[in-house]
Amino acid sequence: MSSRSTDDDPRLGDVSEGTVLRAILARTAPASHTILGPGDDAAVLAAPSGSVVATTDTLVHGPDFRLAWSSGYDLGWKSAAVNLADVAAMGARPTGLLVALAVPRDMRLSFIEQLADGFRAACEALAPGCSVVGGDLTVSDVLTIAVTALGDLEGREAVTRAGARPGDVVAVAGELGLAAHGLAVLFGRFRDGETPVPVDAQRLADGESAAVSAQLRPAPPIGLGPVAAIAGATAMMDISDGLALDAGRMATASAVTIDLTRTALGADPERALAGGEDHALLATFPSESLPPGFRAIGVVRERGADGVLCDGQPAGAAGWDPYRDWDAAAG
Amino acid sequence: MSSRSTDDDPRLGDVSEGTVLRAILARTAPASHTILGPGDDAAVLAAPSGSVVATTDTLVHGPDFRLAWSSGYDLGWKSAAVNLADVAAMGARPTGLLVALAVPRDMRLSFIEQLADGFRAACEALAPGCSVVGGDLTVSDVLTIAVTALGDLEGREAVTRAGARPGDVVAVAGELGLAAHGLAVLFGRFRDGETPVPVDAQRLADGESAAVSAQLRPAPPIGLGPVAAIAGATAMMDISDGLALDAGRMATASAVTIDLTRTALGADPERALAGGEDHALLATFPSESLPPGFRAIGVVRERGADGVLCDGQPAGAAGWDPYRDWDAAAG
Repeated sequence: MSSRSTDDDPRLGDVSEGTVLRAILARTAPASHTILGPGDDAAVLAAPSGSVVATTDTLVHGPDFRLAWSSGYDLGWKSAAVNLADVAAMGARPTGLLVALAVPRDMRLSFIEQLADGFRAACEALAPGCSVVGGDLTVSDVLTIAVTALGDLEGREAVTRAGARPGDVVAVAGELGLAAHGLAVLFGRFRDGETPVPVDAQRLADGESAAVSAQLRPAPPIGLGPVAAIAGATAMMDISDGLALDAGRMATASAVTIDLTRTALGADPERALAGGEDHALLATFPSESLPPGFRAIGVVRERGADGVLCDGQPAGAAGWDPYRDWDAAAG
Repeated sequence: MSSRSTDDDPRLGDVSEGTVLRAILARTAPASHTILGPGDDAAVLAAPSGSVVATTDTLVHGPDFRLAWSSGYDLGWKSAAVNLADVAAMGARPTGLLVALAVPRDMRLSFIEQLADGFRAACEALAPGCSVVGGDLTVSDVLTIAVTALGDLEGREAVTRAGARPGDVVAVAGELGLAAHGLAVLFGRFRDGETPVPVDAQRLADGESAAVSAQLRPAPPIGLGPVAAIAGATAMMDISDGLALDAGRMATASAVTIDLTRTALGADPERALAGGEDHALLATFPSESLPPGFRAIGVVRERGADGVLCDGQPAGAAGWDPYRDWDAAAG
């Protein structure tokens, strides 16, 4: 958090684009894969194995976050983490982020500085060697953070969603349903009517603190993406919209049925099945010899009528579709 | 333009994300550099020379475009073109685009289809071999198009802004001031009070048609980026904010002064100096032997008091800074 007075913390509408960019760049040091960092028309990143993994994901104020709950640091962290998870889910190691910010004119410069700090901290904690290598800044009435993450496969084939085979073990690394628990705490306890209010840490029980943290600053196991690939994962994806929905996507892409084991889904299996935003890694392996960090949660079967079963029964398809689920009036 | 009835053209809020993504993907066929196209957690692109050029640029409804003036096709085209130009300005060949869309719920599916058509058409026309390889779709009250472009240097060093040397020729490829002329036509002739109204082509003189087209669907000479690099360009950038401002950035990065020749700047030198959004390529070469497509517009001198001169006199620094120049009230 910034301790500066507002006199020393101008609104973005009152400073030049260059001032804002310099404030960001001072906080995001290029890491090992950067050949040419920010400041030119484009960045240049190492792609030593002759290909590059690329993904993009956007956070929009309203459907994706509320400023009463998320600090700039939280948003930078989360925007980085969700994109790093997509790179890891291909079995690749993240090499760089590009950050496109569309920001209201009345936001404070310190907010942007916190955002940059959050990006850097997430890279350092989750994906050492990766850093912000480029970006773009424009003005908008709606704070929007569009991030592209790049990664390197280190000579391996990409692990897609399409390779799961009957008999494979279904495994997961990372949390299931914890971020959704955090969102439920925020919606249930930190609103005044429909209006989000800041989180008072004193009002959180121990388990709730971890859940809120998982929602605001998710920490998916990025380094386990390459580990899974090396261990022979046949399919992999990150769980962004809930286990049931995302396992269904993997089942469809692989033309198999995924049969989950309820007792392996933790204390709240329904939340584990439906809850999104943990960005855990869901992977299938050809045998019981899972790499460290992964735990078995089911098996792959021949394709049946349902893509996803739980203990042999249809698991439903709860999950998050932004167009269907977000009600602007309630946002 | 779509000829479908609105019954057959649902609003985005009434269809699933999958429906929208399928409509986009049906229109954006992977091109030659694509190893793994859209549909998984991330795309995989060839990076044959062991590095990747990466840049991102965002178009926001209001500061960057008006829907009364720009069709979905125009916006897809322009969003592609401005990012392709940044790749070309490094001397690289574009290999792929990632498109992050944040779209209001009440927009029609046909608009998204037009957008996808515009992206594809711009890639095919300006950067054959490049295509949309990935993307993201989310909901927002403000239509926002954040694009990341990737490119390959084909074994060459990147051409930065920092290599211009005294004695070099300053040259440009592409239009200077034409897009700004188009914007002036739009603001001057196609508004009802402050409100943009659709362009009536019948009311445009010949030169105005080209100018409006340059504003709405710019066609920078993407292929000349690699040509300039092969010819030995010492510095290069694309002119997005006006020649005076962008030449000043190159002069600062290279610690030189750029002295432009007014008579080389076309019929309206002031507009050429101040007008942005043409995305022409500005480059310096060590001799008069310019590659085809480039024309000399000045010379590089030892650094003096001013970064940019015009016929030896200070050229000013008119140009576009979104925070300074965009007035939301007039937007």
